[in-house]
Amino acid sequence: MVDVELVSSLVKKSSSKIILVVVDGLGGLPSPEYGKTELELANTPHLDSLASRSICGLTIAVKPGITPGSGPAHLSLFGYDPLKYEIGRGVLEALGIGFELTPLDIACRANFATRNSEGLIIDRRAGRIETSRTEELCNLLQNEIKEIDNVKIIIRPGKAHRFVVVFRGENLYAELTDSDPQKVDVPANPVTASSESASYTAKIVNKFIDYANRILEDKHPANTLLLRGFAKHPQLPTMGQLYKLTPAAIATYPMYKGLAKLVGMEVLECGETIEDEVKALQRHYDNHDFFYFHIKKTDTEGEDGNFIGKTKVIEEVDKIIPQLEELSPAVLVITSDHSTPCVLKSHSWHPNPFLLYSKNCLPDEVTRFTEKQCARGELGTFPAISVLPLLLAHALKLTKYGA
Amino acid sequence: MVDVELVSSLVKKSSSKIILVVVDGLGGLPSPEYGKTELELANTPHLDSLASRSICGLTIAVKPGITPGSGPAHLSLFGYDPLKYEIGRGVLEALGIGFELTPLDIACRANFATRNSEGLIIDRRAGRIETSRTEELCNLLQNEIKEIDNVKIIIRPGKAHRFVVVFRGENLYAELTDSDPQKVDVPANPVTASSESASYTAKIVNKFIDYANRILEDKHPANTLLLRGFAKHPQLPTMGQLYKLTPAAIATYPMYKGLAKLVGMEVLECGETIEDEVKALQRHYDNHDFFYFHIKKTDTEGEDGNFIGKTKVIEEVDKIIPQLEELSPAVLVITSDHSTPCVLKSHSWHPNPFLLYSKNCLPDEVTRFTEKQCARGELGTFPAISVLPLLLAHALKLTKYGA
Repeated sequence: MVDVELVSSLVKKSSSKIILVVVDGLGGLPSPEYGKTELELANTPHLDSLASRSICGLTIAVKPGITPGSGPAHLSLFGYDPLKYEIGRGVLEALGIGFELTPLDIACRANFATRNSEGLIIDRRAGRIETSRTEELCNLLQNEIKEIDNVKIIIRPGKAHRFVVVFRGENLYAELTDSDPQKVDVPANPVTASSESASYTAKIVNKFIDYANRILEDKHPANTLLLRGFAKHPQLPTMGQLYKLTPAAIATYPMYKGLAKLVGMEVLECGETIEDEVKALQRHYDNHDFFYFHIKKTDTEGEDGNFIGKTKVIEEVDKIIPQLEELSPAVLVITSDHSTPCVLKSHSWHPNPFLLYSKNCLPDEVTRFTEKQCARGELGTFPAISVLPLLLAHALKLTKYGA
Repeated sequence: MVDVELVSSLVKKSSSKIILVVVDGLGGLPSPEYGKTELELANTPHLDSLASRSICGLTIAVKPGITPGSGPAHLSLFGYDPLKYEIGRGVLEALGIGFELTPLDIACRANFATRNSEGLIIDRRAGRIETSRTEELCNLLQNEIKEIDNVKIIIRPGKAHRFVVVFRGENLYAELTDSDPQKVDVPANPVTASSESASYTAKIVNKFIDYANRILEDKHPANTLLLRGFAKHPQLPTMGQLYKLTPAAIATYPMYKGLAKLVGMEVLECGETIEDEVKALQRHYDNHDFFYFHIKKTDTEGEDGNFIGKTKVIEEVDKIIPQLEELSPAVLVITSDHSTPCVLKSHSWHPNPFLLYSKNCLPDEVTRFTEKQCARGELGTFPAISVLPLLLAHALKLTKYGA
């Protein structure tokens, strides 16, 4: 994509610091009960004060009307064309648990699940079993299944019912359909090849599923498994290579850590709370010039349709703003990867509230950090792929184009 | 174009309904007399109320500064790249009168016209003769001219002075200049080939014009004919194929019906008035999930420079809004294909007022449906090719992109 190349050619290394706060699923829709969006209802004195000193707008992650998954939505924010680089779910999950994929690997996201005596899936998450139980079951599977027809099988536990399966071998291809039917009261699907070259891989995967099912048979509620998002590691240039940054990621969920690693960020150790994340930022502030700071709980509450819960998380985010400002970054951005309106209980296409604070910005007339006010901010409704150039510019990391 | 392919790959069939009202030539410029645009002067309580509950913006049909013809302007709104698909005027006219073109056909738009004894065109529309007279004259021509050098000639009457001529044969090409000089007091132009391959076709067409002129010689005021817009049928994928829609068109003018057929819409029978069009919509509402609802008179008044006339048509449109809302579509859009400011008496490049109402939209701060207020709507000034994805998104017909 031309933009990326242009920006990349103009960037210069400097010590100025950028903090990009991604409040996952931040944007919303008015609830019938309150007649306001989550952001409008929340009490956010610090965000509003920051907005009054910032330039604001709304970002479109991919294209107007397109609801993005977390992968493409983050890639845009990191300065990568989300239509050029596709990241399979399996790859994200593998990276998120710290598993280093090789070019021989096909990774997929796996769930332990429950099926009834008729073979129908009745719980796609096996009652959300404990992580420790998933670890036991993964060990059991790994001990029993090490290789199928010369393809090495690697099984790694994630959180709760989630785990990752990696198929390592020659001539494996990821063009495979999911076994996860994405609904209950139906059987799991057989994995099929969507390209001719992947038919051998499909055979291996289906054999694996058969073996695993036999081993899990008496392990109710985790008496079966569902696989989805088969993928190979995409070869992305790092943010260091593209933008001369030394980026770090502060995130609590595996997938976001995985995304960060994919673009060459160092993932910083931190606890589980937003306050833990702030401490990690403070601790590592001197060692990086770009911080991706991810907050997950807004999205979780949005997906659960918990309107008040989401406003409470927003208020929690509001409280850390002074601590972020205290670090005096050259650029501080508060935005989101995609919207997750509680009324829809899912990701949506609605553009993301965006604010950029920098001593080099000319504040617009936005005085509250809400969807509506951001819509008439200086930046208007603009593509998220433009975010990184704006960060670099305001951090004075871009040289002039042309004489 | 990536956008279209992306959207096409994400669309899912659903029963939710979309109404796209195209108020032809809606946008305007302030009249010196009133200091307001047509929309600003018109009394539009229903449109304004709808705008307050909608997201608004201004659309650019093709590119900034480009004045679009009706073809490209509509293609954009229907989700087709107007720079990829070119539709000749002749093709539109042929489709509009229900003539099915074959791949062997070159179609053109024809006018009966008046020329004086010196051979100069003095009326490009033959005093807008009655449709019945045009039918008589077309019959006369068709009876006398059936074939020229093995090329079949097909002549079909349109409304008033308009008709269609189709040349059917092997090795015909449409790269031909118009015989219509587009002004009076000059002779008609000979048709010339703009590509070498079309020179044979030019010869046939000029022979046809000569024959026709001899036949029409004593038929004043329709004593000659003018041809323009030579074109072959472009092979467009249908909206059903691209967007899994079952679209219907409600329009009173042939060209718009033709456009609708070109993208695979079913053209619904309806009378001549806007109220007739509403009845057609109500009658067929259960059978389709997408309705293109075209209103012509705004454009006609704009082309005539009739400022008050255009505001009256806008007020007429305003009155039908409650009837449209009563149908409870998932998405209701009011917009235009292009602007036709009365002060210019022609199509213009000015972007089109746009409003989208849906229970899944977050209303912006627009409270009146005018050019100026739409400019600061959430959508800002945006390409019309993004309209269809937005319609599909708000009708919940698009799945997520990426993991």
